[in-house]
Amino acid sequence: MPTVLCFNPGSNSLKFDLVEIARDAARAGEGRRLLAGMIDNIGKESAIEITRGEEKIASKKVEAGDFGAGVAAVLDELSGVAKAELEGLALVAVRVVHGGGRFTEAVRFDDGVRKEIEALEELAPLHNANSLKIIDVVQKQQPEWAIAVAFDTAFHATLPEKAWRYGIDRKLADKHGIRKFGFHGISHRYMLEQYAHLAGRPKEEVTIVTMHLESGSSVAAIERGRSVETSMGFTPLEGLMMGTRSGSVDPAILPYLMKHEGLSSEDALNVLEKKSGMLGISGVSLDTRVLEKRSDEDSRLALEMFGYRVRQTVGAYLAVLGSAEAIVFGGGIGENSHGTRKMVCDGLDGWGVRLDDRLNETVENGDVCLSLPESKLALWAIHSDEAMQLAHECAQVL
Amino acid sequence: MPTVLCFNPGSNSLKFDLVEIARDAARAGEGRRLLAGMIDNIGKESAIEITRGEEKIASKKVEAGDFGAGVAAVLDELSGVAKAELEGLALVAVRVVHGGGRFTEAVRFDDGVRKEIEALEELAPLHNANSLKIIDVVQKQQPEWAIAVAFDTAFHATLPEKAWRYGIDRKLADKHGIRKFGFHGISHRYMLEQYAHLAGRPKEEVTIVTMHLESGSSVAAIERGRSVETSMGFTPLEGLMMGTRSGSVDPAILPYLMKHEGLSSEDALNVLEKKSGMLGISGVSLDTRVLEKRSDEDSRLALEMFGYRVRQTVGAYLAVLGSAEAIVFGGGIGENSHGTRKMVCDGLDGWGVRLDDRLNETVENGDVCLSLPESKLALWAIHSDEAMQLAHECAQVL
Repeated sequence: MPTVLCFNPGSNSLKFDLVEIARDAARAGEGRRLLAGMIDNIGKESAIEITRGEEKIASKKVEAGDFGAGVAAVLDELSGVAKAELEGLALVAVRVVHGGGRFTEAVRFDDGVRKEIEALEELAPLHNANSLKIIDVVQKQQPEWAIAVAFDTAFHATLPEKAWRYGIDRKLADKHGIRKFGFHGISHRYMLEQYAHLAGRPKEEVTIVTMHLESGSSVAAIERGRSVETSMGFTPLEGLMMGTRSGSVDPAILPYLMKHEGLSSEDALNVLEKKSGMLGISGVSLDTRVLEKRSDEDSRLALEMFGYRVRQTVGAYLAVLGSAEAIVFGGGIGENSHGTRKMVCDGLDGWGVRLDDRLNETVENGDVCLSLPESKLALWAIHSDEAMQLAHECAQVL
Repeated sequence: MPTVLCFNPGSNSLKFDLVEIARDAARAGEGRRLLAGMIDNIGKESAIEITRGEEKIASKKVEAGDFGAGVAAVLDELSGVAKAELEGLALVAVRVVHGGGRFTEAVRFDDGVRKEIEALEELAPLHNANSLKIIDVVQKQQPEWAIAVAFDTAFHATLPEKAWRYGIDRKLADKHGIRKFGFHGISHRYMLEQYAHLAGRPKEEVTIVTMHLESGSSVAAIERGRSVETSMGFTPLEGLMMGTRSGSVDPAILPYLMKHEGLSSEDALNVLEKKSGMLGISGVSLDTRVLEKRSDEDSRLALEMFGYRVRQTVGAYLAVLGSAEAIVFGGGIGENSHGTRKMVCDGLDGWGVRLDDRLNETVENGDVCLSLPESKLALWAIHSDEAMQLAHECAQVL
């Protein structure tokens, strides 16, 4: 089986994994993770950690002023602890946040792809640039390695026009490429393929709602294996209320804030992106795990508002699909927050959804079916493994 | 029964009605309309029309440079054709768009109320000011008449905090009074009370979703007779795609338009409010009646996008309510567009909704039950009569 080195850049951290997976694997779970690692705090006091199975095989401070330096440190470290695997490496897989409307699946990286990713930089400030910095260092240090990129937007390239088009002046929207792209596609596709496996169903026949609930959260409506609606949009700000993001609000609020608080449009947008969401409501934390341990009114409200908006979105997407066979909770919150799952399912009584309350309260970490046998829709918590999915999607270019 | 003179100002038209209704009527339908009239094209070439039953009793050009002059023309005309009714008049009822968070029901007008309405002017540009202009003229010409005002926001004053609070920085939101208010409350309350009457149910026990679909559109989730969620928000821009309004879009789009199209925030907001929606998509018309007669792709897409967004919102609100007994289509589109009703109902299969397709296609104008007997939710088209509701709500102050 080919060995793939995956890079998954976050806002100030870089996850990497060494994975074995067949080119024609049906799902990420058929692969095998050899190593997992992370550099955190890039640009500040960075440290690298690598584990092989349960065993920590590296843990130390490193110099990583930016993502390029971070990758150099990773390659340096791996050349010691994973020498044999690197020598037989088949592919480097890099996650790119924004593939625009052009990329519908993972592609082999070349200069044309680079130009297209650069052109999308404005739509995903920093994210796309960080992916390219990673690739620069890999190409310089290991020019013989093949590189592929997978996009967070690609899974949603199947959205129909009534979903991807905004209800705004059409000429203006088309002139500026303003449309719904959707994000978290790598995770939503993982949940689809893993659900199909667990339920013993061909994924092309699967119609479900998937939730990726973390500090950034989104929901997708999947009809016969294809994404037909999703809650993030032109940018990852739209949709659900998140850790620090407001999600969708009245579009008139931003100009109102500009005028009455004397903010530039950038600063007003910054309020909605960085100072809102569960952090802005609770005043304490963006993390549901922290909020769930607290008993103050504001923390409770933040959790309630989060769950309430997920519930509405799932209801909306069931109406998009007309009928469905399952609802999948993924991401750190989806997998672990039984309170959130309960809030969502309570709204779906009328659909015949029946949550196994006792199981729901005891289970943490997927992959578990949480519905009672009589439930008309199956309820699943699935551990969405984006690194494995990244390897799986990229390996298909080999 | 007391006689009430109702004034319902639009953006450039003024509707007025003379209505008989008891102070303790259970619903607007218990009242009786004596006269109905309208001045259109205020500020331009205005004309007044008055009908009594089916009979047109006045129709001519008038001078109406603004809403004050319009009301003067109405009073002048009525003093001729409705002299007896005006002499016994019990109340003037005026619709006010924005009652903020303070007004939860219709109130008798006084100087304190005036000040509060003025303070909300910024939130409802022009609308509140036009209502006050009407009142000024009435007070000057007929100082002995009692005046009451009903608010479009009042019915939604029962929203719980998880619904009215936005997921934005809490201190900033509270400092500027940024919250969801909701609109069309007079119409949603009419549909609730009329549905309760038609279904023979006490309105305090009624849990339904109501739709007011016109050039401005909104949906409300009503639980045991109280509004608990609605799609318009801080302003009437939020929620559904409408005639010329975009409805909810990624909040990052407005600053993107400002930057890339070189627009001020006012101009960018103007694009979303005036040049978007069905007009912006079709390039032809904001009117579903016009679009439904056309066969071009863009008109079809505009209708499809409109219906698709209503469908999602109804699905979301059924999830808010958990269970419900009926869905009510109101407003000109809700009453008359069978295509829109069909698009919405097709998504609600999983809820056990069964539309009577044949009846749906033939019925125009309410009040008609459109669901098959086996449908788990009743489907109704109801003719929402805002003028009668305005009289009904205001008469309660007598």
